[in-house]
Amino acid sequence: MTSAEQAVRDTHTRFIAAVNAADLEHVLSLMTDDVVFFSPGQAPFGRDQFPAGFSAGHREFELRCESALEEVVVSGDVAYTRARDSLALTPRAGGADSALAGYRMSVYRLQPDGVWRLARDVHTLAPVAN
Amino acid sequence: MTSAEQAVRDTHTRFIAAVNAADLEHVLSLMTDDVVFFSPGQAPFGRDQFPAGFSAGHREFELRCESALEEVVVSGDVAYTRARDSLALTPRAGGADSALAGYRMSVYRLQPDGVWRLARDVHTLAPVAN
Repeated sequence: MTSAEQAVRDTHTRFIAAVNAADLEHVLSLMTDDVVFFSPGQAPFGRDQFPAGFSAGHREFELRCESALEEVVVSGDVAYTRARDSLALTPRAGGADSALAGYRMSVYRLQPDGVWRLARDVHTLAPVAN
Repeated sequence: MTSAEQAVRDTHTRFIAAVNAADLEHVLSLMTDDVVFFSPGQAPFGRDQFPAGFSAGHREFELRCESALEEVVVSGDVAYTRARDSLALTPRAGGADSALAGYRMSVYRLQPDGVWRLARDVHTLAPVAN
């Protein structure tokens, strides 16, 4: 594994850990200024729109995200990855747990400060039958 | 625009035209051997699984795919793109038209023969209310 691939994997691991820790500041530090997120049935959104959805999700649910990288390919200052993801949701107000599962393809960019950050992200997560 | 970016755009344009023409052979010629497709709620599939779904779709529907590239980024022999897509479906057996809309992120790879081919593809197309 090259050091660049390892650095991309480290960013991915830190990102997921920060999501699960509800650490918004850490999550934001791992994305580019021009990041774009795509989700099924939703309009694309960027860095400015991220905090509201992130905070609302963590207020309503105890979230547990798992993301297993299946591929990391680095070419210059661009890397693309794909991962198998799952998201378990426990409502804080009570009620039944739910879960989503699917795949994620991401683009990471090597930034001038030497850190690889998430730049593009698209997932196909869909509800899983209990 | 660099010649590499233009070449990626050309592959994209030819791919969509071949899809709309139901030209399976042409479509297959524009993807890598290890291509992977991801769709919401479906298992990923590759080149071997592509023809069955493609042919079944064209048998059942008159398809009209539109795909507007919003970004093409080339780094070495890798390019990533995002596009706004729509798919109009007219059942050949009669019945109401339907439509899907969403976004697509793709990775193209420059192959040894000098052709950029589709290598990874994930979309968020969802049904559009009539």
